Amino acid sequence: MNDKVNLEAMFARLDGPYQPAIVGYLNDYKLQLVKAEGPFVWHKHDETDDFFLVVRGRLTIHLRDRDVVLEPGELFVVPRGVEHCPEADEETHVLLIEPDGTVNTGDAGGELTAEPRILDL
Amino acid sequence: MNDKVNLEAMFARLDGPYQPAIVGYLNDYKLQLVKAEGPFVWHKHDETDDFFLVVRGRLTIHLRDRDVVLEPGELFVVPRGVEHCPEADEETHVLLIEPDGTVNTGDAGGELTAEPRILDL
Repeated sequence: MNDKVNLEAMFARLDGPYQPAIVGYLNDYKLQLVKAEGPFVWHKHDETDDFFLVVRGRLTIHLRDRDVVLEPGELFVVPRGVEHCPEADEETHVLLIEPDGTVNTGDAGGELTAEPRILDL
Repeated sequence: MNDKVNLEAMFARLDGPYQPAIVGYLNDYKLQLVKAEGPFVWHKHDETDDFFLVVRGRLTIHLRDRDVVLEPGELFVVPRGVEHCPEADEETHVLLIEPDGTVNTGDAGGELTAEPRILDL
């Protein structure tokens, strides 16, 4: 992981929706790419904030009291402990940053829980 | 900092080169925007990696043994302890992520050392 990451080139190598891949680390944080499409699951992370940056498409992060809609070039940090449910109408490319070991579905678990693979650069 | 951040809208509010602004936090990491133009200074951070994502322009990160050139949509993490010197020929917009309290000039100090201001969203 000593090389730069071209985000779109890496997204082209990703699998389908909600199958994240790690492209690098910042200390003990993983830099993770994920394609969002359709609804994810309601969940929260009691131990950490959750960083989202949209690179392509449009991501709606449903919160219990409002929606945050992210277009390309927009970022949002979901505070720890806050329930959220990402959703995208079309294929959307997202850079996620969170501590290594954070489970994508948080406290919810279920069939969308994924062990991220590590992409060689 | 409960709102999303539109990167380009925030860059439009930034001051000149190498005057960083904090637009949010991810746990105890600051999300920082900086306009790069001209050479910065050679420095290193012994305590932390350093995350760079270019949003606009082109950033050359000189390392002692090579250059890493970042175009928009490309990111690079300078490992802790590695000397580096960012440089941009034209105004370049960079998202930086590093632990809060990290000094921009690392071990080098000098006149480019900046206390980042916090931008209200």
